[in-house]
Amino acid sequence: MSVVIVGSVAMDTVKTPLGRVEKALGGSAVYAGIASSYFARPCVVGVVGDDFPQDYITLLKKKKCDLSGLQIIKGGRTFHWEGVYEGDMSHAHTLSTCLNVFEFFKPELPCHYRDSGYLFLANIDPELQLYVLDQVKNPELVLCDTMNFWISGKRESLIEVFRKSHVILVNEGEAKLLTGKTNLIQAAEELLELGPSWVIVKKGEHGAFLLSGEDYCSVPAYPLKSLKDPTGAGDTFAGGFIGFLSSRKGLSKEHFRRAMAVGSVLASFVCEDFSIYGTCSLTKKKIETRLAKFCEISKIPKIILK
Amino acid sequence: MSVVIVGSVAMDTVKTPLGRVEKALGGSAVYAGIASSYFARPCVVGVVGDDFPQDYITLLKKKKCDLSGLQIIKGGRTFHWEGVYEGDMSHAHTLSTCLNVFEFFKPELPCHYRDSGYLFLANIDPELQLYVLDQVKNPELVLCDTMNFWISGKRESLIEVFRKSHVILVNEGEAKLLTGKTNLIQAAEELLELGPSWVIVKKGEHGAFLLSGEDYCSVPAYPLKSLKDPTGAGDTFAGGFIGFLSSRKGLSKEHFRRAMAVGSVLASFVCEDFSIYGTCSLTKKKIETRLAKFCEISKIPKIILK
Repeated sequence: MSVVIVGSVAMDTVKTPLGRVEKALGGSAVYAGIASSYFARPCVVGVVGDDFPQDYITLLKKKKCDLSGLQIIKGGRTFHWEGVYEGDMSHAHTLSTCLNVFEFFKPELPCHYRDSGYLFLANIDPELQLYVLDQVKNPELVLCDTMNFWISGKRESLIEVFRKSHVILVNEGEAKLLTGKTNLIQAAEELLELGPSWVIVKKGEHGAFLLSGEDYCSVPAYPLKSLKDPTGAGDTFAGGFIGFLSSRKGLSKEHFRRAMAVGSVLASFVCEDFSIYGTCSLTKKKIETRLAKFCEISKIPKIILK
Repeated sequence: MSVVIVGSVAMDTVKTPLGRVEKALGGSAVYAGIASSYFARPCVVGVVGDDFPQDYITLLKKKKCDLSGLQIIKGGRTFHWEGVYEGDMSHAHTLSTCLNVFEFFKPELPCHYRDSGYLFLANIDPELQLYVLDQVKNPELVLCDTMNFWISGKRESLIEVFRKSHVILVNEGEAKLLTGKTNLIQAAEELLELGPSWVIVKKGEHGAFLLSGEDYCSVPAYPLKSLKDPTGAGDTFAGGFIGFLSSRKGLSKEHFRRAMAVGSVLASFVCEDFSIYGTCSLTKKKIETRLAKFCEISKIPKIILK
């Protein structure tokens, strides 16, 4: 099965207490693409300049990414983000953002992408997300992400994206900002009313929860003693989540719960190294082993009160 | 089985966005005592003044609390705390603390308490916690709680309490303050090295986790759309946790995991009403029903990758 992933393809300069990388491969579409590649064929839609290293193209192709939706702008420069993490690394401090060719990104889906059943709209301008939605035929599952910037600046378009999506993915701050609620369950319920069938609230080291009309499921974060670089954790979660779902038949409650675990486990791998190095060389066996441990963490044996 | 609970017995004036109570029954020993009463006989050790209402004594006795360890000081006034919760209610703002008779509290265990197998040392001066530990014979399980005030002010005594305890109960902030670590898993591992066999880190709306040499278990918080008053949630968790364990044979990993669920569920009940009104009229059936829902929340069906 193929999964269409629309988002940024970037070069990131990142500093954390455990090191630094310069112009490393990054961007939401890259993180999600690599995570989904273990379950599906990632059809990437993005834009780079011709400064984008051939090695990165090679790496993405090695991960079976379809790059026919990746625009390469001659004479253009690739989106470059520079950030630093300190303390508990729960937040990145942006040092600089050079949008470069990403500023004029207009996502065009190659014909053979358009009837894909699975679509991940990573965090881009909601107007562009709508533009993508106009290009797809009748996707079985649309997962969309966003950020504070669009919540404040393009709320109406964003709500329209939510209305047309099946699953929306927000972090705690975004859920609160979107709804004005301080209680996350209340916030998620209100988001459900906007149209999607499922809402996922990501809580970083505290895991994530999924709410739908018929289910509530909470997963922990896989316990990591040492985070090297949390960049891309959310997009990696999304890629693992939608990739896994695309590999199953039907969108049952049980598959959604499994997908929450798969997304969380992939996200834990990406935090263990810089850039995509934590996820680009995984094996099914490695993922399965950690998944088994992950599922064990929150298992509670049957309780009968005396 | 009996559980000895040493802590404060108080009258609380609490304001939250959903209401206000004045001089309501509170205190760590009360919250823990009532929660444990569904599984064990709570042997309360505390102090009050003779202003402590007879109704509160009656209520505690109705919950089968043994009050022979409750000192009533003639002419004295009961510990009174006044606080307010705002926003997401994750933190209380203290308006006033009148220790009154609690300032001179010296916990004395009646003879028949001393060979109890289960002891909860709620948050009091670690020197008093040590004084209690000197009075008990050979408890099977000592659970201890503390707070920032003692971590900063009486660190050495506190470390000695930890060394003599089997389970220590801290919140996120306390775990970080105690160890200087920002990573909670690292912090919990360092706390284990101080002597206890189990460390529980409470994370409020994000649940709690348990770490021992042989297990790591994470539980969510029971999802509440509306918190009325979170006062006493931690002590209620502790009371449910130790009460449940005392009702089982042996301290197996499985029983500890069950106890984490029981503690969480009791804590969810207490947040649904002011004071102890959320927990004082429960039934086994009600607890069991919520426990079943609680265990369902984090259940992940078996995953086999293709």
